Amino acid sequence: MGFFSKDIKSLDDLFVHTLRDIYYAEKQILANLPKMQLQATSPQLVASLEMHRRETEGQIKRLERVFEMHGSAAKAVDCPAIDGILREADELTSEVADKQVLDAGIIAAAQAVEHYEITRYGSLIAWAKMLGRADCAQILQQTLDEEKATDVKLTALAENDVNRKAA
Amino acid sequence: MGFFSKDIKSLDDLFVHTLRDIYYAEKQILANLPKMQLQATSPQLVASLEMHRRETEGQIKRLERVFEMHGSAAKAVDCPAIDGILREADELTSEVADKQVLDAGIIAAAQAVEHYEITRYGSLIAWAKMLGRADCAQILQQTLDEEKATDVKLTALAENDVNRKAA
Repeated sequence: MGFFSKDIKSLDDLFVHTLRDIYYAEKQILANLPKMQLQATSPQLVASLEMHRRETEGQIKRLERVFEMHGSAAKAVDCPAIDGILREADELTSEVADKQVLDAGIIAAAQAVEHYEITRYGSLIAWAKMLGRADCAQILQQTLDEEKATDVKLTALAENDVNRKAA
Repeated sequence: MGFFSKDIKSLDDLFVHTLRDIYYAEKQILANLPKMQLQATSPQLVASLEMHRRETEGQIKRLERVFEMHGSAAKAVDCPAIDGILREADELTSEVADKQVLDAGIIAAAQAVEHYEITRYGSLIAWAKMLGRADCAQILQQTLDEEKATDVKLTALAENDVNRKAA
C-alpha cells in the first residue's frame, strides 16, 4: 500500500495490511537467523536458533495459507519495525568483544524479535475473531503459541546458563 | 558507544549499553505519545495513552536513578529498534481512513512499543541480578510491571470495545 494514500478503510484492510507486515518480517527474520547462529557459541543457543529458523519457515507457510483463505494476495509490505530491530541486533553484536557476553546479547536480540512477533500475531488474532474469521485466527494462534514458547525457552537458557557464563 | 569498536567487553558493559538504549527509547516514546493521543478517538484510549505518558516520565526518572546507582553516565545511545517501531506506527496511522479503525491501529502500535519495552526490561533485570545488582533489578522491575499492566489494559480495551467499533 502506498504511504499516506489512506488505503486502510476497514478493520479487514488493517488485518490484511498487518498480515503483509508480518509476512515481510518473518522473511527478514528467516534471512537473519543463520548469521545469529554463526555468531553464537553456546550449543543450546545454536540449537534453539536453528529450531526457530525451521519454525519460521513453517510460520511463513501458515501466513500464505491465511492469505489464501482470506482471498488476498500474499504480498509483503515494508516493515520498518523489524528492520530496526534487526539492525539494532546487528549493531549490538558487532560491538561485543567477548563470546559469552555475545551469547547474552544474541538472546536479548532474539527475544526482541520474538516480542515483535508476539504483539503482531496477538493483534491479528483479535482482529480475525472480530471479523468472524475464527479459521484464520486458529492458524495464527499456532504461530503465536510457538513464539511464546520460544521466548520462554530463551529466557530459561539465559537465566540458567548463558548469563552466568557471561558474568 | 561507537559502532564496531567492540566496546562491550563484559556483561556489565552490555547492561549499561542496553540501559542507554532503553533510555533513548523511553525519551522517543515520550515525544511520540502526544501525537498518538491527538489521533485517538476513543476516550478510554486517550486516557490510557495519557496514563502511559505520565508513567513514561516516571520510567525515565527510574532509569536515571539506576544509572546513578550503577555509577554510569545517564547517556542515550541510538536505538534503531524503537525508531523503526515508531516510524511504522506513524506510517500506519497515516494510511488509515476510518477513525474507529485508526483506534484499533493505534492500540496495535502502542502494544508493539510495550512489547519492545517488556523484552528490554526483562533482559536488563536478568542481567542486573546476575551482576549482583538486585537493587537495580528491583527498580527496573517496577517499570516492567507497569509495562505489562499497560499491555494487558490495551488488550482489554481492544477486545472489549475498540475492535468491535472498528469491525
